[in-house]
Amino acid sequence: MQRIFITDVAPRDGLQNQPVGVSTASKLRLIELLAKAGVASIEATSFVSPKAVPQMADATELVTALAGRDDIRVSVLAPNLRGLQRAISAGAREVAIVLAATETMNRKNINLSLEEAVSVSSNTIHAAKAAGLRTRAYVAVAFECPFEGLVPVARLTQLAGRMHDEGADEVVIADTIGAASPTQVRNGLAALRDVIPVGQLGVHFHNTRGMGVANAWVALESGVRRFDSSAGGIGGCPFAPGASGNLATEDLVLMAEQCGFDTGISLDGLVEAIAFTEKVLGRSAGGEALSWYRSRMSARARSDSPA
Amino acid sequence: MQRIFITDVAPRDGLQNQPVGVSTASKLRLIELLAKAGVASIEATSFVSPKAVPQMADATELVTALAGRDDIRVSVLAPNLRGLQRAISAGAREVAIVLAATETMNRKNINLSLEEAVSVSSNTIHAAKAAGLRTRAYVAVAFECPFEGLVPVARLTQLAGRMHDEGADEVVIADTIGAASPTQVRNGLAALRDVIPVGQLGVHFHNTRGMGVANAWVALESGVRRFDSSAGGIGGCPFAPGASGNLATEDLVLMAEQCGFDTGISLDGLVEAIAFTEKVLGRSAGGEALSWYRSRMSARARSDSPA
Repeated sequence: MQRIFITDVAPRDGLQNQPVGVSTASKLRLIELLAKAGVASIEATSFVSPKAVPQMADATELVTALAGRDDIRVSVLAPNLRGLQRAISAGAREVAIVLAATETMNRKNINLSLEEAVSVSSNTIHAAKAAGLRTRAYVAVAFECPFEGLVPVARLTQLAGRMHDEGADEVVIADTIGAASPTQVRNGLAALRDVIPVGQLGVHFHNTRGMGVANAWVALESGVRRFDSSAGGIGGCPFAPGASGNLATEDLVLMAEQCGFDTGISLDGLVEAIAFTEKVLGRSAGGEALSWYRSRMSARARSDSPA
Repeated sequence: MQRIFITDVAPRDGLQNQPVGVSTASKLRLIELLAKAGVASIEATSFVSPKAVPQMADATELVTALAGRDDIRVSVLAPNLRGLQRAISAGAREVAIVLAATETMNRKNINLSLEEAVSVSSNTIHAAKAAGLRTRAYVAVAFECPFEGLVPVARLTQLAGRMHDEGADEVVIADTIGAASPTQVRNGLAALRDVIPVGQLGVHFHNTRGMGVANAWVALESGVRRFDSSAGGIGGCPFAPGASGNLATEDLVLMAEQCGFDTGISLDGLVEAIAFTEKVLGRSAGGEALSWYRSRMSARARSDSPA
């Protein structure tokens, strides 16, 4: 069985935009439950400005608390050199940077031109590597931008290829607003494979238009083995209108395992992590397959119980 | 642009198992709204025993009321020769028969062995053709059976091929309990294409495990152009434990159109039909993409309104 590598982004992408405050202890508990479920890579937090994203104000505290763990890879987002310095000071060993694929998205998001954003991203990668950190470079709104519409494949390959050339260990193609169709993903990945070794390519899908699982399958078929997803499907991008619903880790695990891939993740364990998230957020969560899986668990529990 | 052909099964598969009674007038209104949205083929009702499925007791009345319509293809389910006779008497012009792919499912569902069920299905197809009706033959639990587990591909091709040989105009491969993965669908359809011309193959997916849209994309890629789906994703099979959620027509239309196919169906029109269904059922409905599409409609309405 071929192995796929899932980074659960629930603690960062999932929580950053929630209307209720989530304590550092709750975040650590969620990360603990995800690790217990077999998730080996977790995007834990973001060193953005606490003013812009108050939910991530405890980034230093969180990373410090996770410093001793060797059972999981802990990745943190750093939007710029200042964020990177904070991440390094906190003891982060893996950092993610984000480059949006369009001029307008960069201007709205970080008030830089696309060219300036490429330069900031490159410098951040160099500085992270110099400090000995592993680096993941996201290309955001990779297929479609809420302001500029469809992103040409040539632009995507150019920007992703640039991040690879600048030294990113992994380049993550992010459909930030969940707009891509399976056909677009297939075509985009076919072109990307010509500029980046497929082992260094990752994908990050949202389920906004209901195509998250389909896009993940296309990525699997295209040879991609690195996926982002969010336990319970929680999350979205606070700066992208219409963005909602990360691809749910449970949907990805169920599909991938049923297609013959090994994720190393236990669905029962994920369900426990999701139940905890639901308690913390005070609302129900879950991808498309969760209610089916939960009823299967109940049926199993009934048949296992003594008569 | 290539055309795909969608049969909306909401009035039959969608309504047959609802806990609230739905009046004939409401069913006709739903069919009217679907037709207005551009749906050209509708599975309207089922000539099952009214005792087994009370929601379908008005089958004759419904078909009679639709007799004059030449703008839509109206298909009705006939479980056996007796149902077929009722369908013919009511003036039906297209009939669907159902053959489950496993011994146990046939026994539980219609109290026949698989061999007997094949014989009944064959006889029903012959009688329907003799009466001049167009015929669709469903192979149900085509990939997995809730009682027997995985269905071997060889069994699927044998049964589907047999229905084709007996004269079915279309053979519909139905993942009745929403259990199939995209890889299983790809492999199944590859084998089926060797025994049935792809133009006569249809697919019927449920979204129980969140793979409905992915499976539909795989079918598109496999050359299939005939799809079942249900506006609002309502429906499930009353006899199959765990079955729920037909692939939503709006999810299928959105995905297929974005992948470059022409469905002939207006999403705005579908939304109107779904809103009506929600009113009738007294609960919210909708596939995965519906809430996104509704917010896009609202945004469009705001920007269109005079300042």
